[in-house]
Amino acid sequence: MKISVKQCAELLSKHSDIIILTHAHPDGDTLGCGFALFRALKKLGKRAVVLNDDIPEKYEYLYKDLSFDSIESGFVVAVDVATPNLLGELEGKYHINMCIDHHATNTHYADYLLLEETAAACETIYKVIKELGVQIDKDIAGALYTGISTDTGCFRYASTTPQTLRTAAELLELGAPGAFINRLMFETKTKTYARLEKMAIDSMKFYCGERVAIITVTQEMYKLSGSGEQETEPLAPLTRQIEGVEIGISLREKPCGGCKASIRTFESVNAAQLAAAFGGGGHPQAAACRFDCGVKQAAELLVAKCEELLK
Amino acid sequence: MKISVKQCAELLSKHSDIIILTHAHPDGDTLGCGFALFRALKKLGKRAVVLNDDIPEKYEYLYKDLSFDSIESGFVVAVDVATPNLLGELEGKYHINMCIDHHATNTHYADYLLLEETAAACETIYKVIKELGVQIDKDIAGALYTGISTDTGCFRYASTTPQTLRTAAELLELGAPGAFINRLMFETKTKTYARLEKMAIDSMKFYCGERVAIITVTQEMYKLSGSGEQETEPLAPLTRQIEGVEIGISLREKPCGGCKASIRTFESVNAAQLAAAFGGGGHPQAAACRFDCGVKQAAELLVAKCEELLK
Repeated sequence: MKISVKQCAELLSKHSDIIILTHAHPDGDTLGCGFALFRALKKLGKRAVVLNDDIPEKYEYLYKDLSFDSIESGFVVAVDVATPNLLGELEGKYHINMCIDHHATNTHYADYLLLEETAAACETIYKVIKELGVQIDKDIAGALYTGISTDTGCFRYASTTPQTLRTAAELLELGAPGAFINRLMFETKTKTYARLEKMAIDSMKFYCGERVAIITVTQEMYKLSGSGEQETEPLAPLTRQIEGVEIGISLREKPCGGCKASIRTFESVNAAQLAAAFGGGGHPQAAACRFDCGVKQAAELLVAKCEELLK
Repeated sequence: MKISVKQCAELLSKHSDIIILTHAHPDGDTLGCGFALFRALKKLGKRAVVLNDDIPEKYEYLYKDLSFDSIESGFVVAVDVATPNLLGELEGKYHINMCIDHHATNTHYADYLLLEETAAACETIYKVIKELGVQIDKDIAGALYTGISTDTGCFRYASTTPQTLRTAAELLELGAPGAFINRLMFETKTKTYARLEKMAIDSMKFYCGERVAIITVTQEMYKLSGSGEQETEPLAPLTRQIEGVEIGISLREKPCGGCKASIRTFESVNAAQLAAAFGGGGHPQAAACRFDCGVKQAAELLVAKCEELLK
């Protein structure tokens, strides 16, 4: 059943024990939602907990001062979770009473669904917390700002609406440390990542009349840089940034042979279609697939398919 | 004489021929100011021209549909120009009647100065254009958005205020193509720039316990990459992105000897203070200065001063 912000706040007000679930491989938006809502519920004197998968270290500022209540059962709320299988290890462990989300692809799996197709789910959580009558402090504001900033690429993407910017403005006024958050999310490279990025850029090769760019990350490069697979996320977009490149691919060698390709495209090419040719999938402009062969052979296979798609 | 937005609009209204000057090595803010103001003045039936140094190609969308009036003399307005020597080749050619600026270091060189210490000078130009009673179209909105977005690193920097975000929201509503502008400004690298960036990153050296990073761009590197001075703007922030770096400097060799330093810092160090030690200036977190000596000696001088400031 779809509900409004007001109905959502009323339902939350009625319950004293609330379990908040975020999606697996959590990002700034799901974590921002989870910890902002948790802090708001605690201010109302409720018992609450946020459950999630491994949180990347850079988000520590969102929760380092918190302690959660031990709750076995309660009213279960999933935040920024489009489908139950995105819950990872939490999938199937709880009956989901409520979902607060912004994905058009939400599968309406919860008893109550508050769905607004905003740039970030944190935009809706902000409204819910205001409706709950909670006074928003700098920690709540910072958590909400984190979700909005990270889900919009710091207000870069087409999903950013005037309302997104106005909400961010209000959150700054409420004490969100915007510059600190953006620096941490977008402007900080570890020395090991900086070394890996340099090697990855050195490895960049162009194909198909320079419309395709591929960077290759080998196990050797992880060793030399001191970096690892978990730091490779920002490499994929680097290829697509070169003028004229329509398909950018980062190929990463796996420790036990085989490799993984992250594909980024602009509107002219469907990344999911390219990935699907090798059993992968994803979004129109960002997709991924795996290969059992080495990086050299994988690059050849990908280039052949790119040639077809660019014809 | 310092003036208000209202007084500024009144002065502009009184004159029929207006010459707009932007600063040398123009960036998005000075160009956004110049072309937005030009478009507004044309809507009021005035004769106007924007004069500037070589404009980097990526800003072509700001002016490609415009034609300027041939004006020998008129009311001269400098936009986003802190001191007359930043006018480059235009310095000394005109008596400056008015200056609209946002630099705290403005030297009050114009007859009338409208100074607001906002994140971008375009924020003030927006107010002036509204005060002039001009209906803001998508081209004016796009020019103003360009200045605000580029001067704040796409709303990342600490200079971004709630009002900055609200102005950007209004400009999106007025038709500014925000996602298009941000992709062009922040996500597109020419092949020549990509080559130069690679060489620049290779040149990065650390000093003062890795709290200072310096990249050096030589004339040789311009030759090898096919790039040039006008493409070096995005290099400066690269140094500061490395974890632990508090002062990031890019040193660029000039064709006829000497060099220029762009300095980026975090709150712990005042970039303008560092630049001032060598006769330069700027903002607390972004400043610049020139040297008559070569890059090697300039780096030594800068490192010595950094050591002092970091104590």
